[in-house]
Amino acid sequence: MAEHLTRRQALKLAAGMGGALAAGAALPACGSSVGNAGERDPYPWPYLPLDLTKSGELGYENYRVGHCAYAVFTSIAGQVANFLGEPFTFFPFDMWRFGAAGIANWGTVCGTVNGASAAIALFFKEPDDMISELLTWYENTALPVYEPENPVLPMDMPATEAASPLCHLSVGKWIKASGFEASSPERTERCARLAADVTRKTVEILNLAFDRRFVFHGLDPQTQECLACHGQGKKNDDIKSQMHCTTCHD
Amino acid sequence: MAEHLTRRQALKLAAGMGGALAAGAALPACGSSVGNAGERDPYPWPYLPLDLTKSGELGYENYRVGHCAYAVFTSIAGQVANFLGEPFTFFPFDMWRFGAAGIANWGTVCGTVNGASAAIALFFKEPDDMISELLTWYENTALPVYEPENPVLPMDMPATEAASPLCHLSVGKWIKASGFEASSPERTERCARLAADVTRKTVEILNLAFDRRFVFHGLDPQTQECLACHGQGKKNDDIKSQMHCTTCHD
Repeated sequence: MAEHLTRRQALKLAAGMGGALAAGAALPACGSSVGNAGERDPYPWPYLPLDLTKSGELGYENYRVGHCAYAVFTSIAGQVANFLGEPFTFFPFDMWRFGAAGIANWGTVCGTVNGASAAIALFFKEPDDMISELLTWYENTALPVYEPENPVLPMDMPATEAASPLCHLSVGKWIKASGFEASSPERTERCARLAADVTRKTVEILNLAFDRRFVFHGLDPQTQECLACHGQGKKNDDIKSQMHCTTCHD
Repeated sequence: MAEHLTRRQALKLAAGMGGALAAGAALPACGSSVGNAGERDPYPWPYLPLDLTKSGELGYENYRVGHCAYAVFTSIAGQVANFLGEPFTFFPFDMWRFGAAGIANWGTVCGTVNGASAAIALFFKEPDDMISELLTWYENTALPVYEPENPVLPMDMPATEAASPLCHLSVGKWIKASGFEASSPERTERCARLAADVTRKTVEILNLAFDRRFVFHGLDPQTQECLACHGQGKKNDDIKSQMHCTTCHD
């Protein structure tokens, strides 16, 4: 807990910034009723097309810096921030370590998917089709396919279809097929290469959108069939999901 | 697609910032090998204790501004940013709209959980126990319990245990118990109140951590029992998950 400002430092900082924050008191309510930063935050960020090869390399390397979500988000947004300078470089990239292994090791959404979706939304106000294109590809592609030039762990890498955007299932399918354990160095290498693949695919989508050539190819046919009855606004409107249904349901 | 800078504007901007970016060319590789913003980004942000009541109100209101993930993240980080000023106010809060309904309506991780976990990691370098405390509470508590002073939709609100941090399951349990549809205004009201609850709980955890009084109470007993054999580094190390096991498995 002690890695952030100490309580004393924080109170001093608050006092120095014009606040009248007594020890034990909570931060006074801010001016804006929604509590956000108002007009000053630059959003969306301007996107500039990125190089696929370089982006894949960064995704692979950054995995071992801050895990899966950090790797994909930082490899994309960090390149643009470095090019544009302040205030874009003020983004607290290290925050994205939280997404590791489906958020703090909980196995929910794959961190590469979480970081990639956020990166898309950072540059485009209407990101849903681009995110759906990415997730449909993620679910239905045998991954990883990325071959690092200088692998940290050289190995014949098995590739598996996740059939889900969830870490627990994506990793689960791979460890079942490969015979390696979840805590093995081979699984770490697999996720680093997956981070490279997802970074590359996201950049591909972003570059197309920048060129106004992005087209959403639709959810996979099986999911579309299920959602024809069970999707929102349909006659049996009972779900919130666009994940591959038959992975968990008969 | 046209809401961001036009291609022409972006190229002009890039040229103006010293880049030699020819039309069609990709952004040149940046200096840092990891492509992140290096030393300049402020991380972790200093946390300052927030008021529970005000935070809950913001969580509820902000849900209708930018959905679930935006609501929780912005209601917490936005209050601190507004108090501290620049460069914290440069954070692109609107990015968090991507987390709506489990990321772009996919039903993966509940957006309130995603935004809350990121907010915790924004202020603390070692956020995992705090995130696990939040998610264990989320899975095992009948929610929502928040009663807005001026509800957008006044109603008797059913509360349900999600038994999962996933949107698809959390919403699914609630619509089954309540009889309302996923696309109903009642379900929207439910998720707005849930955003208030998760904002409050996250602030409670952050305030305790700020005071160095935070204690992680552990995963729920059922999950602990499963992980005793199936957790990472155990004899049957075959999973990446800390989610409630029996929600999906016998």
